[in-house]
Amino acid sequence: MNKRNVYLDNSATTQTRSEVITEMMPYFSNIYGNASSVHTYGQKAKAALTKARETFAKLINAQSPEEIIFTSCGTEADNIAIVGSLLANDGNHVITSKIEHHAVLFTCQNLEKHGYKADYISTNNIGRINIEELKSKITDDTVIVSIMHANNEIGVMEPIEEVSKILKDINKTRKNKILLHTDAVQTAGKIKLDVQKLGVDLLSVSGHKFYGPKGIGALYIRKGTKIEPLFHGGHHEFGMKPGTENVAGIVGMTKALELANLEMEKENRKIFYLRKKLADGIIEKIPEIVINTDIYSSVPNVLSVSFNYIEGETLLLMLDMAGIAASAGSACATGSAEPSHVLSAIGANPLAAQGTLRFSLGRYNTDEDIDYVLEVLPKLVERVRQMSPIWKKR
Amino acid sequence: MNKRNVYLDNSATTQTRSEVITEMMPYFSNIYGNASSVHTYGQKAKAALTKARETFAKLINAQSPEEIIFTSCGTEADNIAIVGSLLANDGNHVITSKIEHHAVLFTCQNLEKHGYKADYISTNNIGRINIEELKSKITDDTVIVSIMHANNEIGVMEPIEEVSKILKDINKTRKNKILLHTDAVQTAGKIKLDVQKLGVDLLSVSGHKFYGPKGIGALYIRKGTKIEPLFHGGHHEFGMKPGTENVAGIVGMTKALELANLEMEKENRKIFYLRKKLADGIIEKIPEIVINTDIYSSVPNVLSVSFNYIEGETLLLMLDMAGIAASAGSACATGSAEPSHVLSAIGANPLAAQGTLRFSLGRYNTDEDIDYVLEVLPKLVERVRQMSPIWKKR
Repeated sequence: MNKRNVYLDNSATTQTRSEVITEMMPYFSNIYGNASSVHTYGQKAKAALTKARETFAKLINAQSPEEIIFTSCGTEADNIAIVGSLLANDGNHVITSKIEHHAVLFTCQNLEKHGYKADYISTNNIGRINIEELKSKITDDTVIVSIMHANNEIGVMEPIEEVSKILKDINKTRKNKILLHTDAVQTAGKIKLDVQKLGVDLLSVSGHKFYGPKGIGALYIRKGTKIEPLFHGGHHEFGMKPGTENVAGIVGMTKALELANLEMEKENRKIFYLRKKLADGIIEKIPEIVINTDIYSSVPNVLSVSFNYIEGETLLLMLDMAGIAASAGSACATGSAEPSHVLSAIGANPLAAQGTLRFSLGRYNTDEDIDYVLEVLPKLVERVRQMSPIWKKR
Repeated sequence: MNKRNVYLDNSATTQTRSEVITEMMPYFSNIYGNASSVHTYGQKAKAALTKARETFAKLINAQSPEEIIFTSCGTEADNIAIVGSLLANDGNHVITSKIEHHAVLFTCQNLEKHGYKADYISTNNIGRINIEELKSKITDDTVIVSIMHANNEIGVMEPIEEVSKILKDINKTRKNKILLHTDAVQTAGKIKLDVQKLGVDLLSVSGHKFYGPKGIGALYIRKGTKIEPLFHGGHHEFGMKPGTENVAGIVGMTKALELANLEMEKENRKIFYLRKKLADGIIEKIPEIVINTDIYSSVPNVLSVSFNYIEGETLLLMLDMAGIAASAGSACATGSAEPSHVLSAIGANPLAAQGTLRFSLGRYNTDEDIDYVLEVLPKLVERVRQMSPIWKKR
C-alpha cells in the first residue's frame, strides 16, 4: 500500500472548511468596518455580527441572541464562565471533575491560590463522573459546577442533563442558585447542542474544533446569570469580551456550526463506522492493548488506545513518518512528561498510560485511510516493542 | 463632483491588505495543524508561529522572540499588562492618564473596585500628559505606569521616552522596579516602534489597526518582567495567553506590520500631506471650528475637529449618506451619550466637544478623496447649522 497522509487528530484541530473560508472572505477586504462604528461600513459589519449571533443562538437552542458572547477561544470562554461567576455571585466554591481540560482544571487550581475552594470529582473506569460524590460536595458556598460535555482525551460523554436535574432540585430551596457550566468544546459540531435540554447556564465552544477558524470561540450565558467580565474596555459583547469584534472569525465559526448541524447525522454515521473499523482492526491485529474509549458512551470520533510496553511519543513520531497524524494525550498538554491526568483518573495502569495514543477522526477520513492505518500501525507497534527490553522479558 | 466612498475611519479599523490575506490563506486549509501537536501538521504550524514571533520581535526591536506574546486584541494585551503586573508584583498602585483608551481606563477603574489604587494624570490642552504631576504621584506602592503612545481620539503622541528616563532614575534606588507600559495600538504601523528606544517594559498592539486582520494583537513583555496570566489553560504563549494559537491571524498581523514598517516613510509623507490639506481646507471653508489635533505632535493620520453649534452624530450620519465615513470620538465608545473623556481632559468646551469628529486617514486615501470631503463637508455643516436655533441666535 502506498504511503498516504491520514489526519487522525481532529480533536486537536480541524481544517477550516472551504465553505467557511468563502463565508469569511468578504469580512477581510470588503465589509471591513468596525462593528461599533455608526457609518455604513460599521453597520454592515454589525449586521453580519447580529445575524451570526442570531444563527448561533438558534443552533444551540438559546432563547435569545444576547445569551451568546463571542470569545477568542474555548479557553477564554471557560475562564470567563468559571472566574466570572465566582466574582459576581456570593460564595467561594467551585465543583469540577478530575478529567477536565486544563482550561477548566488549571483555572480552578489558580482560584484555590486566590482563596477560593475547589473540589474535583472522580470518575469510574470509563471516565464518567461520580454523581453521588458530586452531590456530597455541594455546600452553601457552592457557586458553580463545571463538568465537561465530552472529554478531549478519551471522548467519554458526561451526564450533564442528570447533573442539571440534581442542581435544579437543590436550587429550589436555595437562595443562591448553583450555576452549571459545561465545556462543550469536544461536542460542538458532533453532538447537537441544546442548552435547554442540557439544562446548563453556561456552555463553551471553540470554532476550530468543528472546521471553523482558529482564534474564535463562544460562551453561552443563560439570561439572568450573574457574571463579571475578566477584561475591561469597550462595551463589545455586552461588556463580557471587550475588543473590536473578529467579524470574519465569528461569521466563519457560525457557518461551520450550521454546516456541522445540518450534516451531523450522516457524518456521525460514517465516522462512527470508521472508528469501529479502526478499533476492531487494532483489537484483532495488535496484542497487549487496552481500548480506553467506551464506544457507546463517547463522541463518535475519538479512540484512545493504550499500547502496553510502548512509549507513546516514539510511536507517534513513527506514525508521523508514515504520514499518519495522531496524538499522545491532548495537543494542549504536549511537551509535558507527566502521565495524563485523565488516564490517571480512570485508573489506567501508569505504564500503559505512557503508551497511549488518541486517534480522532474527522469528516475528511475515508475507508482507505483506516485500511492504511491498520496496515502500518501493527508493524510499527511490533518494531517499537522489539526494541524494548521490557517487551522481551514480559 | 460625483458621490464617492471615502473611508476616513482608519483609526477605528482598516481593510485587511490583500498581501496579508494571501499570507494567511494557507493556514486555514493547508497548514491547519495545532501548533502544539508533535506531528508534521502541527510542526508546520509551529514553524510559522516561531517565524512570525521572530519577525515580530525584530520589527519592534525586542531582544528575543520570547518577549512577544500573541493575544486576541489590543484590549486583551492592555489588560494582561496592567492587571498581570499588579498580580505578580509587590505594591498596589497604578498610574495612568486621563486620556487613555477604555481598555486601560476601565481596567484601572475596575482595579480600584478590587482594592487597588489608581491615579489618572491630567494633560495640557493638546493632550500631553503632565510629567511633573506623574512624578508627584509615584509612591513606594507604585507597580506600573501605563501611558498610551498616541491617543485614539485626537492623535497626540505622549512622551514615553521621557517617562521611561524618569522611571529609570527612580528605579535605581528602589527595591521594586516600577514597570512602564504603553498602549501602542494607534502607533503600530504608523510610527516605527522600538521598545529599546522607548524604554518600555510592556507594549500593546492590535493587528486590525494597521491593515492586518481583526481578532489578533500582541503584547511585548521585556525579559525579566514579572507578570501573571489572567487566563489559565494550556501552556500556549508561555502560559500568558492559553488557547490554541490563531496561526493565520498571527502570520497575517506580522506580515501587515512588516509591510507597514517597510512603506512607512512614503505612506506617512502622503498621509501627512493629505491630512494637512484636509485641515487647511476645513479652516479655510468652515467658520467656528476648532482643530483639536496638534499636527506636529501627533500620529500623521488623525484629525480631530470640533464644529461649534453642531451635533456630531447628526453630521456623521449626513456624511455617511454622502459616502464619507468618519467617527465621533472613538468607535469603541459609540453609543455613549457622555462627552468624550479625552476632549474633557484637554479642556474642550463641552458644547464644542459635542460637535467633534475624528477623521482618520489611511493608505487607500487619495487627493480626490480629500477634494470630495472639502466639497461636501462645508455644505453639510452649513445645512446642520441652519437647522439649529442656537446657531441663528449666536
